[in-house]
Amino acid sequence: MARVYLYDTTLRDGTQRRGLSLSLEDKLQIAQLLDDYGMDFIEGGWPASNPKDTAFFERTRGQFQTAQVAAFGSTRRKGILVDEDASLRSILELEVPVATLFGKASVFQVEQILETDVTENLRMVEESVRFLVEHGVTVIFDAEHYFDGYRAAPDYALAVLSAAEAGGASWLVLCDTNGGGLPIDIRNGVEAAKTVSRLPLGIHAHNDAGLAVANSLEAVAAGATMVQGTINGYGERCGNANLCTVWPNLVWKMGFEAGRVERLKDLTRLSRTVSEIANLAADDGAPYVGENAFAHKGGVHAGAVRKHPEAYEHIDPAQVGQTRRILVSELSGRSNLLYHFDSLLNAEQIQALVEQVKQLEADGYQFEDADSSMRLMVERSLHHVPAYYGVDRFHVSVTHDSTSICEATVRILVGGARFVEVGEGAGPVHALDEAMRKALTQVYPQVRDLHLTDYKVRVLNGRDATGAAVRVWIRSEYHNRVIQTVGVSRNILVASWQALVDAIDFLLWSEEAPSRHQEAVESQA
Amino acid sequence: MARVYLYDTTLRDGTQRRGLSLSLEDKLQIAQLLDDYGMDFIEGGWPASNPKDTAFFERTRGQFQTAQVAAFGSTRRKGILVDEDASLRSILELEVPVATLFGKASVFQVEQILETDVTENLRMVEESVRFLVEHGVTVIFDAEHYFDGYRAAPDYALAVLSAAEAGGASWLVLCDTNGGGLPIDIRNGVEAAKTVSRLPLGIHAHNDAGLAVANSLEAVAAGATMVQGTINGYGERCGNANLCTVWPNLVWKMGFEAGRVERLKDLTRLSRTVSEIANLAADDGAPYVGENAFAHKGGVHAGAVRKHPEAYEHIDPAQVGQTRRILVSELSGRSNLLYHFDSLLNAEQIQALVEQVKQLEADGYQFEDADSSMRLMVERSLHHVPAYYGVDRFHVSVTHDSTSICEATVRILVGGARFVEVGEGAGPVHALDEAMRKALTQVYPQVRDLHLTDYKVRVLNGRDATGAAVRVWIRSEYHNRVIQTVGVSRNILVASWQALVDAIDFLLWSEEAPSRHQEAVESQA
Repeated sequence: MARVYLYDTTLRDGTQRRGLSLSLEDKLQIAQLLDDYGMDFIEGGWPASNPKDTAFFERTRGQFQTAQVAAFGSTRRKGILVDEDASLRSILELEVPVATLFGKASVFQVEQILETDVTENLRMVEESVRFLVEHGVTVIFDAEHYFDGYRAAPDYALAVLSAAEAGGASWLVLCDTNGGGLPIDIRNGVEAAKTVSRLPLGIHAHNDAGLAVANSLEAVAAGATMVQGTINGYGERCGNANLCTVWPNLVWKMGFEAGRVERLKDLTRLSRTVSEIANLAADDGAPYVGENAFAHKGGVHAGAVRKHPEAYEHIDPAQVGQTRRILVSELSGRSNLLYHFDSLLNAEQIQALVEQVKQLEADGYQFEDADSSMRLMVERSLHHVPAYYGVDRFHVSVTHDSTSICEATVRILVGGARFVEVGEGAGPVHALDEAMRKALTQVYPQVRDLHLTDYKVRVLNGRDATGAAVRVWIRSEYHNRVIQTVGVSRNILVASWQALVDAIDFLLWSEEAPSRHQEAVESQA
Repeated sequence: MARVYLYDTTLRDGTQRRGLSLSLEDKLQIAQLLDDYGMDFIEGGWPASNPKDTAFFERTRGQFQTAQVAAFGSTRRKGILVDEDASLRSILELEVPVATLFGKASVFQVEQILETDVTENLRMVEESVRFLVEHGVTVIFDAEHYFDGYRAAPDYALAVLSAAEAGGASWLVLCDTNGGGLPIDIRNGVEAAKTVSRLPLGIHAHNDAGLAVANSLEAVAAGATMVQGTINGYGERCGNANLCTVWPNLVWKMGFEAGRVERLKDLTRLSRTVSEIANLAADDGAPYVGENAFAHKGGVHAGAVRKHPEAYEHIDPAQVGQTRRILVSELSGRSNLLYHFDSLLNAEQIQALVEQVKQLEADGYQFEDADSSMRLMVERSLHHVPAYYGVDRFHVSVTHDSTSICEATVRILVGGARFVEVGEGAGPVHALDEAMRKALTQVYPQVRDLHLTDYKVRVLNGRDATGAAVRVWIRSEYHNRVIQTVGVSRNILVASWQALVDAIDFLLWSEEAPSRHQEAVESQA
């Protein structure tokens, strides 16, 4: 089976999407996932344009099993010697195994944008590639604007490819930089490239005409063996080719080997995790991984799917870590709950839980990422969770003039005792968290070791603006165990409070019986 | 120039999308738009499955200039006489000029889902088509599962087409019902259909493999002359072929005539209006019509677009009613700022601004979606923005016991006067917003017409949990103008406060001089 190499540029081209910016920690977390899923190349960033990317290359050096980390950069500037080019030199300093250099493959771009002549551009390409290759770096050459350039002046576009090959490039990647090409343009361009070079070819497609996936597949059908793309299709303007679509298409529809094929069954998780890290809403309509991808609404469809799933499904949803959803059906969600709680609940209790979850989801709760809140809800319904403490009231006060002061007071009852404590914080939620801890650690010292490690806020129904409901999600850790909880309210402090209380309750409940540690962990798996 | 007929099924297949339901008034409004844009066919609904659709056909009878309204229905049930079929009779009662009948073109579907034999299915197709045609209805035959059926048993799929033709169908529409086909499958299927029939062919593609647009274009390239699709690609599961992408591709990339071509320049409005009516968030990444479709973030791109827009744009944004957006971010540097402020600032000031933006972004600000805050920053640095008011202090108090009470007080100075006001709200930000408005409208009545329309919170460095900094982004509208502002603080109320104040200041500043309306709008373009 022929192999197609997957080249992920989520961390570089992906971040060109409007509204997407990633911290160093975000990038490291995504890169780890990409390696785990068997991406062949991870483009880490463009050191010349973004100095903080240097840290990324340092932190990932030698860390990955499968993936090679590539630095991105351009050919040398016009009219200088190649070793005077600060950007190329900065790539060498990173000690990366692979660099992806982009150069112009279009006469229009060379003359009008670079404002140099076509011969100098050929020198820029060849000399830049050679400079890195001679210093031991494997070079992938991205021929920018190749397809537009080829249409306007085919000989020159091909001459640029030859210059990169002469410099010692290992790959020639043909770019539809403006994203306006049709599959036929892609085929013509790839076939022409094969007439001038025997180097392996890659495709870099953008989605401005809604064809990035199709164009990537067409290039592969025409002989390319590398696809550059991003998770969820993030990227400049309308985005890059979506690897969450390209990858399963290559493997299941076209019979290629690509990535770590056995991880495709968790493709949905890859997509969702990256969108969570990017703090962008997931695209419900996305092929394979979208919330709707296997959601059947039409009565005819739903009926048929019950008999024979393949009647209206092009693949088995489990192949990408999805589940079938039959909409407008009281059964939706049931099987998931059954899966987790079959041993705890009887049929009637499961049904009651389905109803409760439905109502809470309609109110804005979401339990996919809040297993601990889900588990608590089930255990509370079985009266397994005692009232460890009662909260009489809390009060938060923020005063802002030349400085700001945040104070929170809580009144908590445990047994017959009453604890009134005050906390200060950088913001109101912080103050509330401090006050709770001060009160509760007096009775439950284990609360001291509960650390909040992530906190997210999502505004529901944004159109209600500052009066809208918000969902707060909190991730806590306790001795390496993860506790994820959720709260919803029109008051952000109340929503945060609910999620905090759930985290503490879950900790106390799971600590009560040692066996629950493992149980709790498994229910989250 | 050859014509491709556009067949819109937003009102039928579109509503199979999860979360999409349309009232009769919604449908009428969308149909009016579709006619205005020159769609050739509007599929109004499936009367047999949805009795309220009858009213739609009554209300639209004879109403449209271009579009023909089509009723959707299936071939007769197995084992009955055709004139006993209630569903077919209900189509006749509608007195529609066109009916679209779907029938199975796959042996698997006939035997396993319909549970009948292949010969009976051929009779069902032929008799049902003939029944309507003999009563004066033009019939478009949708060959359901045609491509899957053709792959498994080509002769039978083609026999179904012949049966429809024998019955008197005017069109044969080949359906990739499960959406899993590749362009090559589509080409093979269309070419095979041409060998058995000279009727005009149509394509109905779904997007489960991310290829609905490509497959539609491939079918047209192979000879189909009708494309069925929906506005914004709404539809069952991953949706149908998106007409907002297919249409401009057909006209501008492939040279066909389709729809009312002069209305393409308002394509973005069509897309946005339909998503407003459907009450679904617009897809920012959508080709041609998405908010990001002509948004340039990379510094290299922005610099080049400033010289020659076509450097990174596959079409002129005005062709689809769009405007170019140059985003300001840490990735962009000088060129993006130059693009906006070239006429206002000298080189030294631009450089200072670049440094300031970099520092603010390091602190967590993000300006790419907050043009108004960006503009204010520039104008403030030029001392163009007076202190319209001073905020002495604000105080927010939240008490939560059996209920929650949120109150905010503000002390504001305008000239010599001092305004102390209190606001109540569902949450603390809401209360603060109310208090500010109460105080300021006494001096600046225009603040009353400033409406907050969206509010987002992003927790920065989530790992600092409840002590982390947050970025608040607010979108406001003032008489159809959009004002987008941002605030950052470790205290969510302070961050919200900053964004609120910026929105108000921007409004007051741009209202001061009438010329600034246009300027402000342009700087956001």
